[in-house]
Amino acid sequence: MNDISVRPIGFVKNKRLEKSDKNWSSIESRIELTSEFDSESLEGLEFFSHLEILFYFHKSKKEFKGSEHPRGDRKYPKVGIFAQRKKDRPNHLGITIVNLLSINEKTIVVSNLDAIDGTPILDIKPVFTEYLPKGKVEQPNWASELMKEYW
Amino acid sequence: MNDISVRPIGFVKNKRLEKSDKNWSSIESRIELTSEFDSESLEGLEFFSHLEILFYFHKSKKEFKGSEHPRGDRKYPKVGIFAQRKKDRPNHLGITIVNLLSINEKTIVVSNLDAIDGTPILDIKPVFTEYLPKGKVEQPNWASELMKEYW
Repeated sequence: MNDISVRPIGFVKNKRLEKSDKNWSSIESRIELTSEFDSESLEGLEFFSHLEILFYFHKSKKEFKGSEHPRGDRKYPKVGIFAQRKKDRPNHLGITIVNLLSINEKTIVVSNLDAIDGTPILDIKPVFTEYLPKGKVEQPNWASELMKEYW
Repeated sequence: MNDISVRPIGFVKNKRLEKSDKNWSSIESRIELTSEFDSESLEGLEFFSHLEILFYFHKSKKEFKGSEHPRGDRKYPKVGIFAQRKKDRPNHLGITIVNLLSINEKTIVVSNLDAIDGTPILDIKPVFTEYLPKGKVEQPNWASELMKEYW
């Protein structure tokens, strides 16, 4: 199959200019739709509490395909790229569930989006409870350790 | 910004050959990685209960940008494309959290993946509890109605 071409539908504006693994919950972000879209595309979105944001890690030039220690730290086990959420991955795509704060015309204000200023947005989806995990979510200890100061 | 080129990292194999809005939980799917990847990319994935699957709605040729009644049914309010999760959307990308059943070499077996046979997969991420919604998830009634027979 050929490559697939996608385009930004919006961009992130916030105060975080560099990558970070800490304190993301302190950052409020605006998502501004491109000129291709108008406010009609957001109609009814205000009745959802959470949104799923799909974005492009535009600053990442590296791509890991094998396994390695998360953040290069040997206290974490060596795990495959698809067992991690890091940005240096095939296709460089990120997905985060954010809290919707407000909508004004073509701008959405959100919290808990872990994307730096200028990040291209590829999709916005409402979070339906029916799309949340079915059954208990379990993860290895290293993942919990890794995320301790993240938000 | 220019378009972004992405490529399949795997493909879905299952028994559902056509689109459907019903009974997806009955479908078990295999995700088979492409020749570009080997089993090392999945190392440690078996310790997660749930995965986030990013896929391409490869059969969708339409793209809505405005607002409409979900499934064309006037019992649902007219809402914008970014307030819906339908496939006929900008960039035609789908995201679903699935249950991991097993991993065998380069094949992952999952349930609750609402993608038809042959669907290209663009990314696989482990579900971290720290990436689940923060605070109570609320949605309008139409979304709950829409999803009644979906899984």
